[in-house]
Amino acid sequence: MAYPKRVRLAEVGPRDGFQSERKIIPTDLKVKIITALAEAGSDEIQVTSFVNPARVPQMADAEELIRRLPRREGLLYTALALNTRGVERACQAGLTGVEVSISASDTHSRKNAGMSHLQAREQAREMVRLARECRMQVTGSIQCAFGCVYEGDVSAENVTETARMFLDAGVHRLSLADTTGMATPLSVEARVRSLATETEALPLGLHLHDTRGLGLVNLMAGLAAGGTCFDTAFGGMGGCPFVRGASGNIATEDTVYLLETLNIECGIDRQQVAACSEQMAAFLGRPLPGKLYRLNR
Amino acid sequence: MAYPKRVRLAEVGPRDGFQSERKIIPTDLKVKIITALAEAGSDEIQVTSFVNPARVPQMADAEELIRRLPRREGLLYTALALNTRGVERACQAGLTGVEVSISASDTHSRKNAGMSHLQAREQAREMVRLARECRMQVTGSIQCAFGCVYEGDVSAENVTETARMFLDAGVHRLSLADTTGMATPLSVEARVRSLATETEALPLGLHLHDTRGLGLVNLMAGLAAGGTCFDTAFGGMGGCPFVRGASGNIATEDTVYLLETLNIECGIDRQQVAACSEQMAAFLGRPLPGKLYRLNR
Repeated sequence: MAYPKRVRLAEVGPRDGFQSERKIIPTDLKVKIITALAEAGSDEIQVTSFVNPARVPQMADAEELIRRLPRREGLLYTALALNTRGVERACQAGLTGVEVSISASDTHSRKNAGMSHLQAREQAREMVRLARECRMQVTGSIQCAFGCVYEGDVSAENVTETARMFLDAGVHRLSLADTTGMATPLSVEARVRSLATETEALPLGLHLHDTRGLGLVNLMAGLAAGGTCFDTAFGGMGGCPFVRGASGNIATEDTVYLLETLNIECGIDRQQVAACSEQMAAFLGRPLPGKLYRLNR
Repeated sequence: MAYPKRVRLAEVGPRDGFQSERKIIPTDLKVKIITALAEAGSDEIQVTSFVNPARVPQMADAEELIRRLPRREGLLYTALALNTRGVERACQAGLTGVEVSISASDTHSRKNAGMSHLQAREQAREMVRLARECRMQVTGSIQCAFGCVYEGDVSAENVTETARMFLDAGVHRLSLADTTGMATPLSVEARVRSLATETEALPLGLHLHDTRGLGLVNLMAGLAAGGTCFDTAFGGMGGCPFVRGASGNIATEDTVYLLETLNIECGIDRQQVAACSEQMAAFLGRPLPGKLYRLNR
């Protein structure tokens, strides 16, 4: 198996992890954790999302948080934006990276974003345009790229056409998200290989959830198929808060450990990440899904 | 990747899972769970171990439990034996399968079995002889085959020589156990491929722990390298009780799900296994490490 020598991990715990927590995490603690994650070697951290604070109170401190984060050369902070207002806020807050995300499932798009997949696709094109005007690094991501709890299989055409729109609009990275943890090694391999012919030199990323325990197995399939960027969350935070006890994203420190065993570099110190997971588990008063951080105690 | 069309899963939850629980599981509940696991389609269930009841109170009901289990053609009940007395008890209890297990790590062997690796190897030869005399199916298993918390890397020679002894003594299956969760995809592949040349037509099994989150990744590596039998535990029970919150064996239902996505048959209904996990989680009053059973609630 030919694996890349180095991959990029994008830490999404402070966004995808924090957003599903009911207990409000103080901005001070967010700053502390994000600073520690940066010191652990992360090159890219998704720190918040620009959404309606009435709907997601955990993200109400987006602007203040960004103001207080330490800057370092080579470290990219990003936010998730779900509409043009979100991109504008990210730009005004001084962020240099943004993720524009839409769902490949029409039903999921209507329920989650209040618009059809095609409407969302057109809106996303405008979002990318705005983000590029603002000179931001843009990741175009496709939710439910491997299936949808409402629709089951998701239209391959929707995925491909969305990828083409993102490419055409000028994103810097394309990312496929397994929003509901339905990806399998075979579906990851098939979709990544098929898109790789479209995306050519553009970095292809994967956002994998561990809902059914296949997170790292899917990462292996993605690696083998040519994926070079992976979203991970410290402690395996995140995922769907409506599924009791389910896991979230693949855990950063577990992923780093796996990569180490494969002699693949990512520049991250997993012990330092594990310390963040332990701190967050203590704050939340429950263990996080990640495995490795528990061994450090 | 060429995978086998069918693999055998050996359910070890009732032994490897139950033995590490402090709360005594009533024999009635054990019978109920094992019966349900058999009805879910398991071909092989390790139901107990013959050890000193003063040291492992959870296994004190071994003989009674075996007496009360329902028999079905094609279903093999096994027990773990750690000395000749254990093999004798398994035989007297009417079991038709036994696992003879020794550690490849000298330090682990001395701490756990009170004898050197070489002494354990000679004892194991005698155990296999006894078991065969009793017409039992014998699995010879090698603990710490992928590393040891005391010694780090384990002598490849110890592993190979133990495998040869087991083959010579006439086991029906050879099994490599990742006792402390230190196996990696590369080490699994290397060791399985290297032993496959020794074991030829003998089925090669893997006993994988998910301590560091690599359980199913290692299973994939084992599958690709030619492994055809895998120990699993419903709910992901088991593992080392001394590691707080750590995971145990790879979860049966999660493994079945992964195999399904790869179109590999194993004859087990994962929903029925998941129901056992839910029942056990309720009895123990805490979630088990497995992922999939939580989605069924």
